[in-house]
Amino acid sequence: MCQLLGMNCNTPTDICFSFTGFQARGGLTDEHQDGWGIAFFEGKGVRQFLDSQASAQSPIAELVKNYPIKSMNVISHIRKATQGQISLENTHPFMRELWGRYWIFAHNGNLKNFRPSLEGTFLPVGNTDSELAFCFMMQELRKKFGNREPSDELLFDFLAELTAEIGKLGEFNFLLSNGRALFAHSSTQLTYVIRQAPFKKVSLKDRELKVDFSEVTTPDDCVAVIASLPLTEDESWQTMQSGSLWWFENGRVQRCSVTVPGPESSYGT
Amino acid sequence: MCQLLGMNCNTPTDICFSFTGFQARGGLTDEHQDGWGIAFFEGKGVRQFLDSQASAQSPIAELVKNYPIKSMNVISHIRKATQGQISLENTHPFMRELWGRYWIFAHNGNLKNFRPSLEGTFLPVGNTDSELAFCFMMQELRKKFGNREPSDELLFDFLAELTAEIGKLGEFNFLLSNGRALFAHSSTQLTYVIRQAPFKKVSLKDRELKVDFSEVTTPDDCVAVIASLPLTEDESWQTMQSGSLWWFENGRVQRCSVTVPGPESSYGT
Repeated sequence: MCQLLGMNCNTPTDICFSFTGFQARGGLTDEHQDGWGIAFFEGKGVRQFLDSQASAQSPIAELVKNYPIKSMNVISHIRKATQGQISLENTHPFMRELWGRYWIFAHNGNLKNFRPSLEGTFLPVGNTDSELAFCFMMQELRKKFGNREPSDELLFDFLAELTAEIGKLGEFNFLLSNGRALFAHSSTQLTYVIRQAPFKKVSLKDRELKVDFSEVTTPDDCVAVIASLPLTEDESWQTMQSGSLWWFENGRVQRCSVTVPGPESSYGT
Repeated sequence: MCQLLGMNCNTPTDICFSFTGFQARGGLTDEHQDGWGIAFFEGKGVRQFLDSQASAQSPIAELVKNYPIKSMNVISHIRKATQGQISLENTHPFMRELWGRYWIFAHNGNLKNFRPSLEGTFLPVGNTDSELAFCFMMQELRKKFGNREPSDELLFDFLAELTAEIGKLGEFNFLLSNGRALFAHSSTQLTYVIRQAPFKKVSLKDRELKVDFSEVTTPDDCVAVIASLPLTEDESWQTMQSGSLWWFENGRVQRCSVTVPGPESSYGT
């Protein structure tokens, strides 16, 4: 199993504090040592750091922890391999381009017997169920909406359908972003917190580190942090219901859709 | 104008020495300070570092210089903006996936009035002529060969045709790799050197740094280094003829194709 970390904000914000706790889980306070990665949107561009080493020992993770990159959408992942060997091409997050935007995806879980029909428009480079699911989602978005990017509402509705269908095949916790919105799906395990005024002092669970957010923010800042498990001691993390897809934008929840259990998935074998 | 650096090898090799000289040209010994980037293939995976800061001042460039990442195909670029503002989405190299492989592209030059017809399969995220050319090339490769990756020979022949056509619109020096081969096109300025046994001492042009390659290689190693301008004092860099497309693989030249001047490009306005 893996762990996920995401951030969606209304103003460019660095993730150094949250990442410091998260990084420790990659081989120090927890066992996710089969690689890690992080992607930062900066405008429409993406800065991605990937490493097949454990994050707790990675010089690149040290750089990320200490170099404040400001972003409105961040997705990070630490890996404990289930499907696919330990290698760079199997390291999350994955990136593809659709409608002239980059899309970033990371997954925690295990999809069993997932054999979607791929038409060649988006193909996996590695051999994880995760990248396969991402490519399939990109393909289906394109098939559904063609060359025209849909409205956010239509996009969310279709993602909810697609996610519900794929989610029938196993654990499918994921984070997905197009640089504007961040979509989070809880299949078995995902939590979030919204940081907003009045800001307060907060301490990490995984390291001896506190920060007083009131000193590093303005009263208008709004930051959603999504993580597999709560990262801090003194904030009220919300557990995201199993089967729920969330749309975060500008640091707030825009919509949430909960799957009603249905018949078997049409994408299995 | 920008500068390019590429490496293609028969064994995973680090680029620290060559990158040290190249990095200095991004704001220290030369004027290319509008961002820089580097992409390393490791197996089928890609590790990409991008920064819209000058490479000579970038903490990420310091990491790359000091952290020996071993790769068989590397492409790097330092930017002096011509088209497109200074931003992460306009920073080379660019990446797309085709046939279940990542493709990496960097360009030096300026294509004027290049208005290709894009069908939506590969769209630029930023607004450079370079990313536009890359997306168009990916689209045309896919249109020509469909979902089946062609043989290397057929791929090279078609790339030569495509490059000749686009090259009519302006300066089009580029490096392109699919993780196996590295293709280099000289439009106005590109040089290369093959490093192989007997290895010798070599000194950088842009920094006070020497290396004795015989101490860090085995007799079977073969490394092609391609750069806009020679990086070292004491090696015989070959100038690549204007209009020539080169196919490097396993550290050696596999083929070279020279364009015969023809009628006007069909991709202009």
